[in-house]
Amino acid sequence: MIFKEIIKKKRDGFELTENEIREIVKKYVDEEIPDYQMAALLMAIYFQGMTDRETLHLTDAMLKSGKTVNINIDGTIVDKHSTGGIGDKVSFIIAPVLAELGLPAVLLSGRALGFTGGTADKMESTGMKVTLNEKEIEDVVKKFGFSISCQTEKIAPADRKIYALRDATSTVESIPLIVSSILSKKLCVNTHGIVFDVKVGSGAFMKTLEEAEKLAKGLVNVSKLYGKKAGAAITDMNQPLGRSAGNAIEIIESLNALSGDISNDLLEVVTTLAGIIFKITEKGSFEEGKEKAENIILSGKALNRFCEWIEYLGGTTKLSLGKRRALVKSDKEGYITEIDGEALGFLIIEMGGGRKKAGEKIDHSVGLRFFKKTGNYVKKGEVIGEIIYNQGDESVFINRFLSAFKIEENKPESIALIKKIIY
Amino acid sequence: MIFKEIIKKKRDGFELTENEIREIVKKYVDEEIPDYQMAALLMAIYFQGMTDRETLHLTDAMLKSGKTVNINIDGTIVDKHSTGGIGDKVSFIIAPVLAELGLPAVLLSGRALGFTGGTADKMESTGMKVTLNEKEIEDVVKKFGFSISCQTEKIAPADRKIYALRDATSTVESIPLIVSSILSKKLCVNTHGIVFDVKVGSGAFMKTLEEAEKLAKGLVNVSKLYGKKAGAAITDMNQPLGRSAGNAIEIIESLNALSGDISNDLLEVVTTLAGIIFKITEKGSFEEGKEKAENIILSGKALNRFCEWIEYLGGTTKLSLGKRRALVKSDKEGYITEIDGEALGFLIIEMGGGRKKAGEKIDHSVGLRFFKKTGNYVKKGEVIGEIIYNQGDESVFINRFLSAFKIEENKPESIALIKKIIY
Repeated sequence: MIFKEIIKKKRDGFELTENEIREIVKKYVDEEIPDYQMAALLMAIYFQGMTDRETLHLTDAMLKSGKTVNINIDGTIVDKHSTGGIGDKVSFIIAPVLAELGLPAVLLSGRALGFTGGTADKMESTGMKVTLNEKEIEDVVKKFGFSISCQTEKIAPADRKIYALRDATSTVESIPLIVSSILSKKLCVNTHGIVFDVKVGSGAFMKTLEEAEKLAKGLVNVSKLYGKKAGAAITDMNQPLGRSAGNAIEIIESLNALSGDISNDLLEVVTTLAGIIFKITEKGSFEEGKEKAENIILSGKALNRFCEWIEYLGGTTKLSLGKRRALVKSDKEGYITEIDGEALGFLIIEMGGGRKKAGEKIDHSVGLRFFKKTGNYVKKGEVIGEIIYNQGDESVFINRFLSAFKIEENKPESIALIKKIIY
Repeated sequence: MIFKEIIKKKRDGFELTENEIREIVKKYVDEEIPDYQMAALLMAIYFQGMTDRETLHLTDAMLKSGKTVNINIDGTIVDKHSTGGIGDKVSFIIAPVLAELGLPAVLLSGRALGFTGGTADKMESTGMKVTLNEKEIEDVVKKFGFSISCQTEKIAPADRKIYALRDATSTVESIPLIVSSILSKKLCVNTHGIVFDVKVGSGAFMKTLEEAEKLAKGLVNVSKLYGKKAGAAITDMNQPLGRSAGNAIEIIESLNALSGDISNDLLEVVTTLAGIIFKITEKGSFEEGKEKAENIILSGKALNRFCEWIEYLGGTTKLSLGKRRALVKSDKEGYITEIDGEALGFLIIEMGGGRKKAGEKIDHSVGLRFFKKTGNYVKKGEVIGEIIYNQGDESVFINRFLSAFKIEENKPESIALIKKIIY
């Protein structure tokens, strides 16, 4: 393989073969291909794209650079993946609900990336153990019907190496590269079905429906080519999901949600994803799955399972939040037309609840509460939210919170929460 | 400057500023920007192109990474550049002709690159000194009215570093990158006017008229933005130029040409380029320049100047060729419709007359003679050319020579030698 010929082939829009893609990944990991040639190839992929078949081979090659996870358990193992957003605590609610539905759920989650929170970080706010080996995951799934744990270093090391290069060379925003990066860390588990929650809007990585749809189709199609059942929902992230954003505070919201005290938007997203899983795994229709999930949540049936799971892994469900609190009052009257999730995500980082650099310690106890959402009418001076923090300049936080809220005279058109479902 | 933001800017199709481009080149040369980021930027430029203004700034930044050449002489200093082809000995004829016309010509030439020959290599076949410093060039121009010498390492080192990376990352074939690479080594001389001979066809780097035109316009426009008079001719390279290709053999052909014994195609190219120079430097009209150049060549007036120049720099005009010769006879009857210059260029390399790798020694005495050209009718067994060599398998050489000639039943349409003139 003459690597510059491979670059030229992709540059000129031709499809790379399975062998070529396997060799690229292997030789890049083995440092036989220098970063500068890989960087040129990644930029060529950015412009020319990849077919689903190429993406499949890239995914598989990256996946095989690391360990696979085989859970030895009866039943239809399922997984749910979110592309990340603000206030996204869906995993904590859907996993015990799926367990309740008789579908063992095995989720491998990551840490906070950019402005969005990370499931593993939220779990750590309970003090529970978040990194489990194959045997431990199996044990937890057998006990609770579900497991959420942190991706280890052994999963898809090729993806980490390639992702670092993409980050340095402005080649992150390529749909096939995003798809293969996500799937190399998902398809390594012996799940039967996966549902993808592709977030779209100001508080998500995908800002337009068009991009989100491409990503959703890529994830579903490549997963299917890999032999999995797969479906996706494109869900709105033009405002935070649910009533809070942060780490401990989202666990608290999840406990409430599982007891039946759940916001409409969160309920809608969780039940829609459950419906999709029901359908793709042929347990029943979408509607059936959605309804059953809703009944479980509203009846509080899955709460105990969740609490016991946290405690079994050494965590507590009695979480304490930041020592200082500040209510945020609207500075004008009108309808809330937009809530900029990305700005709120960066505010949480500023308050210490997220990372500016990988590896940084975070303060799990800080967070934001949202009392008003898009479409609500607020008066000047009316409380719209709360900031929970430990240190820093309260007035700066309040101003940043306020400036994420757009308040206008006219009532906004209501935005569909579930934009599209893709099988 | 956050370099990944610069890559993103170009990737997304925005114009880079003068300061950004200067910083990129400076920091890349100083090794503050790693190869992998530069590679990603080059691939983004491959896809998004550059405006003439960006190309100007890139050219200037690369040029200023090295030394400039200031020739202190009265008169309108001119230059001619060719993008390279097979049998291209135009420099040796036009330089003394321009001198005869009262236009001091200062040419800096390179070595053989890929399948095409290099002017500096051809000069070395005479044993003359080919690398001159500023002072020596000035002395030679004062004595002979022209100078052809080899580019030194001190000229545009940034271009060499960037070119090596382009070569390894399949980003060579980008018009603005080609333009800036050529011009960074041309505009560093205090010439007033430059004419570009942009070759197009099977024996040239540009295979289509469209590509050649883009390149010619880029070269002319950016030279003008730099404050030079500039023009270009797009000339045919679907067969070798003139009667021979090689090193010593092309010097011999040049001596004959300057004595008035010149092939029509070579005469046409040389006089066209002279006409363009005449016009751009406002010495007179294109037609006037062309006619004067033709008169000088046919009358043999510039021959002595050329011979004395070679001898002054320690060379000889009594050149010896390879010890072995083989006539090539046509293996069928018909019209010659195409002669693949690239294949013949590689044949010369195979015979030892060119380089497979930079720095290799070459055998100046080998070469090819062409007795028949495109449009000629040949009988089976008729001699169409000659191979002059020292070692290797004669029958292999003959077969390769023959397979470069396409002989067909129908007379081909005549191909225009001068495709286009661009000012």
